[in-house]
Amino acid sequence: MININVPVGASLNKDGTCSFSVWAPMCSSISVVTDAAPEDTWPMKKQKLGYWQVTVDDTTPGMQYWYKFDDKLLRPDPASRWQPDGVHGASAIVSTDFNWTDDHWQGIELSELIIYELHTGTFTPTGNFQGIISKLDYLQTLGITAIEIMPIAQFPGHHNWGYDGVFPFAIHNEYGSAADLKQLVNAAHQHGIAVILDVVYNHLGPEGNCLHHFAPYFTDKYKLYWGDSINFDGAGCDGVRNYYIRNALMWLDEFHIDGLRLDAVHAIFDSSAKHIMEELTEQVRQLEQRSQRRKILIAELDLNNPRYVTPVEKGGYGMDAQWVDEFHHALHAVLTGELTGYYEDFGSLEHLARSMQCSYVYTGQYSQHRKRFFGVEPKNVSYNQCVAFIQNHDQVGNRLLGDRLSASLPGEALKLAAATLLLSPHIPLLFMGEEYGEKNPFLFFTSHSEEELIARLCEGRRKEFAHFNWEGEVPDPQSEEIFNQSKLSWKTNESPGLFIFYQQLIAFRKKKLAMQNFRRYDAVRNIRIQNNVLQFERHGNEESLIVCL
Amino acid sequence: MININVPVGASLNKDGTCSFSVWAPMCSSISVVTDAAPEDTWPMKKQKLGYWQVTVDDTTPGMQYWYKFDDKLLRPDPASRWQPDGVHGASAIVSTDFNWTDDHWQGIELSELIIYELHTGTFTPTGNFQGIISKLDYLQTLGITAIEIMPIAQFPGHHNWGYDGVFPFAIHNEYGSAADLKQLVNAAHQHGIAVILDVVYNHLGPEGNCLHHFAPYFTDKYKLYWGDSINFDGAGCDGVRNYYIRNALMWLDEFHIDGLRLDAVHAIFDSSAKHIMEELTEQVRQLEQRSQRRKILIAELDLNNPRYVTPVEKGGYGMDAQWVDEFHHALHAVLTGELTGYYEDFGSLEHLARSMQCSYVYTGQYSQHRKRFFGVEPKNVSYNQCVAFIQNHDQVGNRLLGDRLSASLPGEALKLAAATLLLSPHIPLLFMGEEYGEKNPFLFFTSHSEEELIARLCEGRRKEFAHFNWEGEVPDPQSEEIFNQSKLSWKTNESPGLFIFYQQLIAFRKKKLAMQNFRRYDAVRNIRIQNNVLQFERHGNEESLIVCL
Repeated sequence: MININVPVGASLNKDGTCSFSVWAPMCSSISVVTDAAPEDTWPMKKQKLGYWQVTVDDTTPGMQYWYKFDDKLLRPDPASRWQPDGVHGASAIVSTDFNWTDDHWQGIELSELIIYELHTGTFTPTGNFQGIISKLDYLQTLGITAIEIMPIAQFPGHHNWGYDGVFPFAIHNEYGSAADLKQLVNAAHQHGIAVILDVVYNHLGPEGNCLHHFAPYFTDKYKLYWGDSINFDGAGCDGVRNYYIRNALMWLDEFHIDGLRLDAVHAIFDSSAKHIMEELTEQVRQLEQRSQRRKILIAELDLNNPRYVTPVEKGGYGMDAQWVDEFHHALHAVLTGELTGYYEDFGSLEHLARSMQCSYVYTGQYSQHRKRFFGVEPKNVSYNQCVAFIQNHDQVGNRLLGDRLSASLPGEALKLAAATLLLSPHIPLLFMGEEYGEKNPFLFFTSHSEEELIARLCEGRRKEFAHFNWEGEVPDPQSEEIFNQSKLSWKTNESPGLFIFYQQLIAFRKKKLAMQNFRRYDAVRNIRIQNNVLQFERHGNEESLIVCL
Repeated sequence: MININVPVGASLNKDGTCSFSVWAPMCSSISVVTDAAPEDTWPMKKQKLGYWQVTVDDTTPGMQYWYKFDDKLLRPDPASRWQPDGVHGASAIVSTDFNWTDDHWQGIELSELIIYELHTGTFTPTGNFQGIISKLDYLQTLGITAIEIMPIAQFPGHHNWGYDGVFPFAIHNEYGSAADLKQLVNAAHQHGIAVILDVVYNHLGPEGNCLHHFAPYFTDKYKLYWGDSINFDGAGCDGVRNYYIRNALMWLDEFHIDGLRLDAVHAIFDSSAKHIMEELTEQVRQLEQRSQRRKILIAELDLNNPRYVTPVEKGGYGMDAQWVDEFHHALHAVLTGELTGYYEDFGSLEHLARSMQCSYVYTGQYSQHRKRFFGVEPKNVSYNQCVAFIQNHDQVGNRLLGDRLSASLPGEALKLAAATLLLSPHIPLLFMGEEYGEKNPFLFFTSHSEEELIARLCEGRRKEFAHFNWEGEVPDPQSEEIFNQSKLSWKTNESPGLFIFYQQLIAFRKKKLAMQNFRRYDAVRNIRIQNNVLQFERHGNEESLIVCL
């Protein structure tokens, strides 16, 4: 009843026509204008719930179009599939045709996940999907089972981490076409590698956002520090909910994506009786039935609240897994001795032991950094619902100089970190280049075009860093040089033996029966700290392995 | 672990000393000053988590005191038990001694509840607790089993509905003393009547709020239309959570109150892993164990979300019951034909039938008024977890002229409404005077002292009423006359037979076995509408009663 299931955007039909559907409830008239015949306007017809629709004749893939409002203003499509000239240009029609050859593929289970996070623009010299395809053999050799691609939604300018996307349905025009992404997914599946896509449903980027011209996508009911909150529960929220659910289903269904990593779900505010995450899960479970493929939803969550990954029948939102930053923080503080910023809540081996066993470190204790008692125990959450990492885009890129662990730690320490991650019962996530000790930094980079916005951005970064007492100037995120420095060097031999060590750990993890047990109550046993050594048993399937770190 | 359980306020000790405890984490020094020796200051000692404590010698009940800040400013106690001179005056020490004679009393079960809502200031000519005591015989004769007292926390001025309270621990100085309230509760229990207290934990009133001088009680993370949001999840929230949980326990434990009605819990925003309502429930269940008395938590909730009254083991917050305004709206629209404001979502007998059976009318359908699909089914919620009413302080008082149903409907229609309520499976709530067809209005009244605030208030009322197309001037809430008009007339014979009809319905409800079944799946059977008559069976305990309305 709740999900309204209305298509959004431009859908090419077999007969050469194209059906347009846009949500614009406050509008009194709206039409489609194409570049093929700019003098013609195609008035849309108002449907239920504020949607407008029209079918336009003689269309072809690549044809550009605008929505024209009664005030004559032209706007791109909020559900645009392609912005050939970037965020300020026209939208373009895209064909969904593709010759898939992954019929054998059934998706991936949580217990099989070994994730490799990558950023399309800096992963390879070409900085696009073709580049990623060229590395699939390498990734297969490494042994990872899934790549997680940082957000690819159209963002302003040439480079961006992806969290400033403003067209959630359009692939960033410099990364490749829709067909290129399908080629990547298809090739990954041929390599036995699943594809997880990072999507941002908690805000839109600060430049090129056309959504507020169309409908109440935003609300001032909740305050978000990095943009307007998305209206998931106020008047008109059904159009917003439909928009994001359509988006998730597009990636998972049309693009054969195996899972979504949902950015900062703690910043998605929703007081509805059915939380948008629960509604999304429900829709994705139905897609699993239809497609006969497993689809995974992973939440980035900073609440130490198991509700998101608890089954719906037990009062949860039914998502599959969540990130646990505290595993990272515990390990990072122990390895580096850093105790500023949020690391002030960590720093002893006990913290790491706690995360190894409980996933969350804070399960009700007082957090000095948050200035409150924080979290509850994830009692009924199994380990393979928790994604752990020793580095990721945030934990590296949100450092003043974007320095990786390899910049400050000796090779042996990098190996220790790798073993801690890969022998832990959690889902491991590697950050691109980590496996060979990449020395290049991963810095924060943007290429916005609005001066005032750029100034605000730099000021924001400065404030964020103030907590950490890092010394030095904040690198200019707009600099081309900063972007280029952040590309992987692919000097895979700089940390001798590290790549092979990762390879062996991954193989060990896949082979050993004890590593296949993810039950909360017995997968980790007899954990203790002696003489500065963390020791525990990985237990299960009639096998026990003693791990000493 | 989460509940910090620190006392707040002034506690008289047996040896004549008094222990003070106040939460003021940002303060660098703070002392107690009493009116007995204004030249002496008692410097407080900083404890953990920003609490300050000191024990002062030679104190007596009634002794007035202030907290003195390092900047020499004097402030009353946020947890003051008594404000003898109102919100702008000093706080005073109160003795907790009382000779209770209700040892036999064990609280009240949900299945027994027949609630009578009253406002202390307008219920009787004296407008205080003694007035209520004088009416207990009358209420016993009527047959109700619980009174629900509108908020009594100290508010500014002489008259107020109570939702502008600014000292949640202090009883409004004109209603009576703490001992008077205890006398009322004790006497009610002697009459077999439970006492429910309406408490406001979602905001503080706009005048006389001293809390922001002490600690981060408020947050700008969530936007509330009637004041600053309470900080239940940000930095320092533990002090806030402790404050409100102490408050709830004070009423339920020290004052022997049987239940709390929590005002607008949908306006309590909390992203914590353990929601403040869940934490409160947990604490109240422990009190039930300690006191061997049943204690009830009722939420006023405008979300059609059963999570609040779902058991904790099933992922809910574990509260006992919630208000269902939609029962009222459905009945009111049918009876009066009003279809403006939120009544636009109602108006047919089908709506009433739906509420009779499902409690919520909107369980996923599109609400024209909210401009969204709304609610889910309260599948596992039993009927005696839902409080229904045909009038209440809001539904009468938030009408332009505060007119009751008796002002516009003939006696027979009032009886029909009464039967609809009392034969429904829900917990019935009567609004004072309803049982005899009181003709006096119940208007919105305040006695603020700040000009700008008064202007804002009137403007707010005007905007609220705009949705309803009511004609006429908004009565001046500050007028003494408006307050006096709102007092019950006690002309109990103006609607002949109505009081006896209520009495008989209540007696019938208590006597009939079929009326004691509240199970969602079979308490209401064969509901149908024929020739404009709503007909259903009340079924249970091997008895079926056919109800035609």
